[in-house]
Order: sequence, then structure tokens, then C-alpha cells
Amino acid sequence: MERRKFLKDVLKAGVGVTAGLTVGSALSFASQGKIELPLPYVKLDPKKVADRAYDGYYEHECAYGVFNAVIGELQRKVGGPYLGIPTLMFWYGGGGAAGWGTLCGTLNAAGAIFNLTCKQKDFKAMIDTLYEWYQTTPLPTYIPCKGNWCKQPFPKGVSHSPLCHVSVQRWCKNASVYFGRPILYNSKERSERCARLSATVAAKVVEMLNDYHFGNFKPHKVKGSQKTKMDCRLCHEVTMKELS
Amino acid sequence: MERRKFLKDVLKAGVGVTAGLTVGSALSFASQGKIELPLPYVKLDPKKVADRAYDGYYEHECAYGVFNAVIGELQRKVGGPYLGIPTLMFWYGGGGAAGWGTLCGTLNAAGAIFNLTCKQKDFKAMIDTLYEWYQTTPLPTYIPCKGNWCKQPFPKGVSHSPLCHVSVQRWCKNASVYFGRPILYNSKERSERCARLSATVAAKVVEMLNDYHFGNFKPHKVKGSQKTKMDCRLCHEVTMKELS
Repeated sequence: MERRKFLKDVLKAGVGVTAGLTVGSALSFASQGKIELPLPYVKLDPKKVADRAYDGYYEHECAYGVFNAVIGELQRKVGGPYLGIPTLMFWYGGGGAAGWGTLCGTLNAAGAIFNLTCKQKDFKAMIDTLYEWYQTTPLPTYIPCKGNWCKQPFPKGVSHSPLCHVSVQRWCKNASVYFGRPILYNSKERSERCARLSATVAAKVVEMLNDYHFGNFKPHKVKGSQKTKMDCRLCHEVTMKELS
Repeated sequence: MERRKFLKDVLKAGVGVTAGLTVGSALSFASQGKIELPLPYVKLDPKKVADRAYDGYYEHECAYGVFNAVIGELQRKVGGPYLGIPTLMFWYGGGGAAGWGTLCGTLNAAGAIFNLTCKQKDFKAMIDTLYEWYQTTPLPTYIPCKGNWCKQPFPKGVSHSPLCHVSVQRWCKNASVYFGRPILYNSKERSERCARLSATVAAKVVEMLNDYHFGNFKPHKVKGSQKTKMDCRLCHEVTMKELS
């Protein structure tokens, strides 16, 4: 708290001070377009960030939902270098990048967040840890406290992939069994699933960051077959022999 | 000590932001935490940006290569709001996001660039136009003016997909035929291909942005089968009848 108050006081009066003290070096620094990473991280509340990601999804989709929830909280609590990052820039990540069904937007945003807030030697292992969790865990687990859906049971799915298309299709299949009727991509149920997924992933990212910065968490690297860490059989018709 | 280090980190990271903006606008950013998009765009030189992307690839991989080349040039020529964006934040996009082989990092970076610099109604169509070009064009076309490879002929490939894994594997297959020996993922030739691809995509992004902002270019939306714009047959064993 003391640290936070100190920072707040500095920032309140500090923009002028910073500029005043270091205009020369700052201008050359700025002209090179370099801001040193990682940016400072303070502990965030996963529940609060999750709620914000859920709402954010319904504003500008999944990637923005996650990015704005985490970076938005850091803008509020740390300020400084975070204030120069327009969180709306991750809108494009929605639906696996403008609907192309590639990398799940929640994971895309998470990659950028880890890149911004973790040491160079660690951010890829943070990504590995998150993506592996994502593709092996029944999701979404977040339950909203408002809206039409909060009181109803809601289906989960294991994606087996970081790809939007695969993740969504697997969930829709599960959800169709769960609801006893076809749940299509363009349904409200699928949107709600992606809103809850945004909240779930945002909370997980913050839990990982809290543990990494203030606990003993060590991220682990995922090794994969030659170049991709995904299961080859997702796309390729291959025998077990070929995979081994 | 901790307090002092934390403040030092904040100031180190924040100095570019405060210096690049006027004190007044920086303070209003600080209070609102919002930067309006799109950011102002000025005409850039595709060749210059391509050279920068080529070099950037060998520093921090493909997504950084493209993002830093375009946004770095805008930081230099426009300054202002661009100075608060740490271009290194796109390092994670390399190899389809930390090597996961999903969305090609050059396309990931391009998505963020269009999101930052084009109107809300247009940035997804800009992405569609770029991704469609990417997956149907023999790439890379950029030829570096330095290094071991500049004087030698260099193979191209059509990716048929925005996915890193698919794009790289198809190129490796072509390159193996071209060179008459197996070109593997971990080869220098593959790295050089991705460096040239970063340069090629960065130049294309700038050509599109120049035409969009200062010419008559209208981006077009790509419609796809229900939810993804990729060719289903890339991953699914399906008949033509099922696709129609």
C-alpha cells in the first residue's frame, strides 16, 4: 500500500517532473521508440479482472476483453508506461484474428500481456504454461453475477488446441449434447461461452502473474514436435507410429 | 530500496511516454486511461519499412519485425501517441505465438497495426484483404541488399493458410525441391525465408495503408464457411460435396 501511495503521489505530480528532469535524454529515447520491458507489475485481483474481461468481451470481443481487463487495471493501479498503450488495439484478435479462426483471441492477448510484464527469459514459458492449461482444462469456469445466464448451468469443453476454430467447434459439440439441441457458432450461447472464456483466461493470467511476481511460481516450457506444440493428429491423419 | 527500484522502473519505462506527449495531454491520458483510435497516419516508404522489418526479424522474430518496422517509423515520423507503445511487446507473436505454430506472426502484427491506424469499420476488411493476399501469393518476394543470401536465387511458396505451421511447412517442401536437399524447420534457409517474409508483409501493409489513407483503396471483406475463412480441406478430410 505504501509503495502504491508513493507511486500515486509521484505520478500525480510526476508527469511534469519526469519531463522536466530528463527532456534531453527522454526525447532521444522517445525518438528511438524504445520503452524498456518488462513494465512494473502490481498484484491484481483475479475476480475483478475477470468481471472486467466478461464485460469487455461484449464490447469488443475476446482479445480486447482480456487485454483491456488486465492492462486496464494496470493503467488504473500503476499508470505511467501503461497509459500509453491503447487497449482497443487488441480488438482485431477477436474470433482468432478478425474471424479467421486462428489463435484464440484470449491467448493472443495473454501473450502480449506476458511479453509486457515478464522477463525476457520467462515470457514464452508463461505462454507455454497458459496455452497448455487452456487446451487441457474444461472451460469456461467463470460464472457471471449478472445477465440472463448467471443462474443457469453452463456447459464446458476441452479444446485440445489453442486455435479458435477448434476450441469453439469442440465446445459447440459438447454444448449441443448438454442442451439437447444444436448450438451453432452464431448462437447467443456461443457468445456467452466466449465471454466466460475471456473472463476465465483473464483471471488465470492474473493468478499466474501474481504467483510469478510475488510467489514462487516458475513457468515451464512446452516442447513440441519439431515446430509446433499442438497435437499433430488435430489436423493430420497420422498413425501413432508416425508420431513417435 | 524496493520503493526506489519500483519508481526507477516506472520512470525508466515511462519516460518515453511523457516526453513524447505534451504535459497537458499526458495528464489527460493519465486521468482517462484512454487513447482514441485510429491514430494519425502519415505516408511511409515501403522499401524502408521492409528493410527495417528484415533486420527486426533477426533481432526478435517475425511479429516484432513487422510491428517495430511500421510502428517504429510512425514513432519517428508522427511521434505523439505512437511513442507510448512498446514495439517489443510483439516479440511473443514469433513462430505463431511463442512457437505454437498458430497465426503467422507477421499477420498478427499486421492485425494490430491496422487496428491502430484504420477506422473501426475498415480494419477487419484490411486484415481480410491482407490475409487473403498472403495465402494466395508466392512469398517471400523481398530481396535483401546485404548478407550471405542477397545474391542467390531464393525459393517462394504459396501458404494456402494464415497459420505459421502450414505456411512454413509448405515453403520448406518447395524449398527442398528448389535446393535439391531437405530444408528443415531449424535451418538457416527457413530463418531467412521468415526474415524476407517479415519484410514482404511489412511492405505490403504500408502499401495498403498508403493507398487506404491517401489513395482510393477500399479493403474488401472475406466471407468464409460459417466461422473460419480458411479452406476446410487444409485440416479436414472432406469431400467437395460437403464443402458446397
